[in-house]
Amino acid sequence: MENNTKAMYKLSYGLFVCTAVDGPKMNGCITNTAIQVASEPNLISIAINKANYTHDMVLKTGKCNISVISNEVDFELFKHFGFQSGRDVDKFADYPSENYAMAENGIPYITNGTNAYFSLGVEQTVDLGSHTLFICKPEFMTVLSDASSCTYEYYQNNIKPKPQPVGQTPKGQTIWRCTICGYEWIGEEGEDLPDDFICPICKHPKDDFEKVE
Amino acid sequence: MENNTKAMYKLSYGLFVCTAVDGPKMNGCITNTAIQVASEPNLISIAINKANYTHDMVLKTGKCNISVISNEVDFELFKHFGFQSGRDVDKFADYPSENYAMAENGIPYITNGTNAYFSLGVEQTVDLGSHTLFICKPEFMTVLSDASSCTYEYYQNNIKPKPQPVGQTPKGQTIWRCTICGYEWIGEEGEDLPDDFICPICKHPKDDFEKVE
Repeated sequence: MENNTKAMYKLSYGLFVCTAVDGPKMNGCITNTAIQVASEPNLISIAINKANYTHDMVLKTGKCNISVISNEVDFELFKHFGFQSGRDVDKFADYPSENYAMAENGIPYITNGTNAYFSLGVEQTVDLGSHTLFICKPEFMTVLSDASSCTYEYYQNNIKPKPQPVGQTPKGQTIWRCTICGYEWIGEEGEDLPDDFICPICKHPKDDFEKVE
Repeated sequence: MENNTKAMYKLSYGLFVCTAVDGPKMNGCITNTAIQVASEPNLISIAINKANYTHDMVLKTGKCNISVISNEVDFELFKHFGFQSGRDVDKFADYPSENYAMAENGIPYITNGTNAYFSLGVEQTVDLGSHTLFICKPEFMTVLSDASSCTYEYYQNNIKPKPQPVGQTPKGQTIWRCTICGYEWIGEEGEDLPDDFICPICKHPKDDFEKVE
């Protein structure tokens, strides 16, 4: 039998907004890796890509909130927290105040399109190369809605906009869309992605892009 | 706002059979914690309860296979690998040979009710109290079926038998069922679970049991 890396897509994930505060700076990113890893004591782990600005904030402050994204989420949430970097923009400057609230730990949590949130304190970090694994103690948690949690598969099938049919995209351009996060790269007609292309949003390689037109 | 530990149920998980071999002994258990935690290098983590016999085998040998359970799984798979311990029974002695195959690493993987499998080598372990977190390098992986992966929520709603209505259970007995794994504790009429009761299968406490009759 041959090795087939598509097996990686058979692993299941929830989707979360991980928020952090460092001084006056509030920020958040999308992550898919929050799980309970122990019951005595209760511990939750999250793996965050080192390229994310939120990663550095959690590493420095040892605190974050995890808002659990529900099936009732709008794609806008993913665009807002996933398709831009906190290094370039203040994600909370233009974010409607009715979409989030401040937790006791002074870190915002998302109230729109979510069904629960956790305030976490980092107990231990494990350096895994591209990512840091944060092993955290939940200091507070509550349920925000009865809606089901949004899995990565549900996001792919129901939340993420479907690729547009050929002819709907701007004339004469070639669009490559990241199948992981939805980021679109627009090139000249027939232009291929460079072989070493890395998605600026989710850091996945060229292999994870599909041609839209 | 009050702390509400039901938030823990909003975290999403896949479901897996983790198999290991130690000398002549083959064993496997159900786990819900396999996820990709880094991309460079590609790393998969699994948290296994120390009370599981498979835990000790993986810790000793540094190897295991993870078979990804699909939506087409039968409840029997969970009973076989989840509701009994490898300390008491040889789970592969009476397991139909058409339901599994041997991987290159000499460890069985499950072929019935699964959609992919991974052969993992343990790179690092993190002691988390009740569980050990195994951080593993996938040495081989492949897809076994196009079926969707079975999430924990799908298992709860579609695979696990529904609690029987009152009157269907043996007369005069009180049954408490573990809402986590389905284990049933049968007591005298009206008998309550002891306060310090721990599910013998999944190790969850009394709070996770519901009265069937």
